Amino acid sequence: MTTEQEVRAVAARSKEAAAELAPLSRAEKDAALLAMADALVAASASVLAANERDLAAGRDAGLAAGMLDRLALSEERIAGMAQGLRDVAGLPDPIGEVVRGYTLPNGLEVRQIRVPLGVVGIIYEARPNVTVDAAGLCLKSGNAALLRGSASAYHSNTALVGVLSEAAAKAGLPADAVQLVPGVDRESVTHLMRARGLVDVIIPRGGAGLIRNVVENSIVPVIETGVGNCHVYVDAAADLEMAASITMNSKVQRPSVCNAAETLLVHSSVAETFLPSVGALLHGSGVTLHVDPAAAALVPSGPLTVPATDEDWETEYNSLDLAVRVVSSVDEAVAHIRRWGSGHTEAIVSSDTRAIRRFSSRLDSAAVMVNASTRFTDGGEFGFGAEIGISTQKLHARGPMGLPEMTSTSYLVTGDGHVR
Amino acid sequence: MTTEQEVRAVAARSKEAAAELAPLSRAEKDAALLAMADALVAASASVLAANERDLAAGRDAGLAAGMLDRLALSEERIAGMAQGLRDVAGLPDPIGEVVRGYTLPNGLEVRQIRVPLGVVGIIYEARPNVTVDAAGLCLKSGNAALLRGSASAYHSNTALVGVLSEAAAKAGLPADAVQLVPGVDRESVTHLMRARGLVDVIIPRGGAGLIRNVVENSIVPVIETGVGNCHVYVDAAADLEMAASITMNSKVQRPSVCNAAETLLVHSSVAETFLPSVGALLHGSGVTLHVDPAAAALVPSGPLTVPATDEDWETEYNSLDLAVRVVSSVDEAVAHIRRWGSGHTEAIVSSDTRAIRRFSSRLDSAAVMVNASTRFTDGGEFGFGAEIGISTQKLHARGPMGLPEMTSTSYLVTGDGHVR
Repeated sequence: MTTEQEVRAVAARSKEAAAELAPLSRAEKDAALLAMADALVAASASVLAANERDLAAGRDAGLAAGMLDRLALSEERIAGMAQGLRDVAGLPDPIGEVVRGYTLPNGLEVRQIRVPLGVVGIIYEARPNVTVDAAGLCLKSGNAALLRGSASAYHSNTALVGVLSEAAAKAGLPADAVQLVPGVDRESVTHLMRARGLVDVIIPRGGAGLIRNVVENSIVPVIETGVGNCHVYVDAAADLEMAASITMNSKVQRPSVCNAAETLLVHSSVAETFLPSVGALLHGSGVTLHVDPAAAALVPSGPLTVPATDEDWETEYNSLDLAVRVVSSVDEAVAHIRRWGSGHTEAIVSSDTRAIRRFSSRLDSAAVMVNASTRFTDGGEFGFGAEIGISTQKLHARGPMGLPEMTSTSYLVTGDGHVR
Repeated sequence: MTTEQEVRAVAARSKEAAAELAPLSRAEKDAALLAMADALVAASASVLAANERDLAAGRDAGLAAGMLDRLALSEERIAGMAQGLRDVAGLPDPIGEVVRGYTLPNGLEVRQIRVPLGVVGIIYEARPNVTVDAAGLCLKSGNAALLRGSASAYHSNTALVGVLSEAAAKAGLPADAVQLVPGVDRESVTHLMRARGLVDVIIPRGGAGLIRNVVENSIVPVIETGVGNCHVYVDAAADLEMAASITMNSKVQRPSVCNAAETLLVHSSVAETFLPSVGALLHGSGVTLHVDPAAAALVPSGPLTVPATDEDWETEYNSLDLAVRVVSSVDEAVAHIRRWGSGHTEAIVSSDTRAIRRFSSRLDSAAVMVNASTRFTDGGEFGFGAEIGISTQKLHARGPMGLPEMTSTSYLVTGDGHVR
């Protein structure tokens, strides 16, 4: 059983490393990232051997094929992770940016400057590529990465962190810039969540259970990511061809991710025209429709059409399922989304500026898409070059998080003997 | 005993009010703030009568004179609170500001827009003026205020919120824009801290015990404010007259507040010249010096000079006490501050650009003052026009918090049928 002392000792080393990372120049950090990329490729054989131990244990434990696939590394996946590090090296350094700057009437110069957060704890599941991703993004933003992967990827993660840490040290950075939290038991996570003062923020990346556990039990500040019960609203003034295309893309292009749509809301004045055809299209892609009574009368019946319950309105299916409801106004669509949504992404299809303005100003979501697919809420699509996750909380960061969201700020105030 | 159901019912009304407040224009909010100011002055007599009940109860309970003074209202203090609301009406509206905006290569227009947080819970002690302050700042930033004052100010706060809420309703805003959390027992606070999903953020304003309780037990995100163990470092290259003036101002001008200095660090090469004279000055203002052995040999001895222990280095005295230590370098000063400080404000007095750069880049504090008093870390001094508190955490807001720190952001993405 992992002890609190073990976790705190490692976190204290992360804190010391963070103090050394904060003042580094972009050139120093980028050189280390490139060295880490090269080291990763050079160490492929030993990383793959460690990964094979995890895969063997996973097969013995009867892990599902999908889980095993997410766990599996290959030369190609390692090359992809290394390329990811090189890409991060190519991004601008957020640290040192003057966010606000002005001179006060008394002559004091005030500068609000971007600085690292310090120690970033990341708790995640299964995929070992998150280990490399997270380490790279933390390092680029001047933060020490304190990583807690899943037990099933233990050997892979240990090998990866060993390679990254050694490469960082060779490049003149503290070896503790990237560390694993000791232990793979529950206590290991618990102690990390209690390490306030040593760890500055925890970002959980994984399923709803993991995220809820961290949000409810951490006394270290948390950035909540990931849950997305997204909506597409087809307005009375929608171009119905566009509406069909956006609905299909939002649902079908990649149903397993958080920015996929889970509910379709259709204005009653276009429901009769729209629902029969889009219903057939969705059925054609294997989508099961969970319909309210009004929609039931309009979409094709059959095994892929079932009645919706309240549970459907609040479910993030992450699968080829879509809840469908007919609404009588923008306000009813807004009320539905406010009641049942998770505040991730909602799309409106409309050419009516008043409807668009009302929809976008009355919602309370991280992103509103106007005549665009919900699938665009994504750090890569937004041009961030990298994404730590998609925050669904309102504090600190909301929506896709890039490197600037991995920072805090500090005020530098310069005077000439100023006193009050 | 206040039940969870009671608190959640009130919080749910705050959430509904927040939905109505979010899309309001600046003109609508300012009109309500001015109406609230007028209503407050008009209701002086009833507010003072309610305050008298709190004061009588406080006297019966043997409250200290200082506490009673902080609790006491007067015509003048009510006029001051009303003026505060008018001042807030005069500030720019943070809501709707486009924080970032750009067009992607595919033609999607991305706008990151400032939006309200939603429901802001504020837990505070004693002074009823915080009730009006907090309500005004929340309303201006489009947030619903859910206030939990102290039991000792219960009648005053109830009267004040009654007046504000009625005035808001008359101005066409939801009456629930400003509410008190029901109850004044421990359970009332506990249930507020568990109301995740209804309350978006909790800001504790008060003593260290209150803040620790909220930080450790809230599952609603918290913005931590208030603790300040601030340092003044007098460098080898300091103008010693300036150093004395900044030291005196940082310690003596208002010792009870969080941006007052608690520790003086002096470079050994100037200690012999500086400490005898500044020690005499500090003694002359009644400051007790808690000194390390090197400083002990240099400051005037007597009843106001006592030996320092490790406890002194980490204590926020909030009184006419100052810990004093001689250090041999900037790095030793930085190491001392990183080890013992609270990350609030540190000042350096120096004319050496290298020392200043090293000091400011190696610390991990909300504010660094270069040749200026620690007392300038303040929303009013920074020109914010209003201050919710001074955040000592790194997430969301750091340092003095003005109206923009009471907001979140939301992405509005506009396309023309864009799909992935």
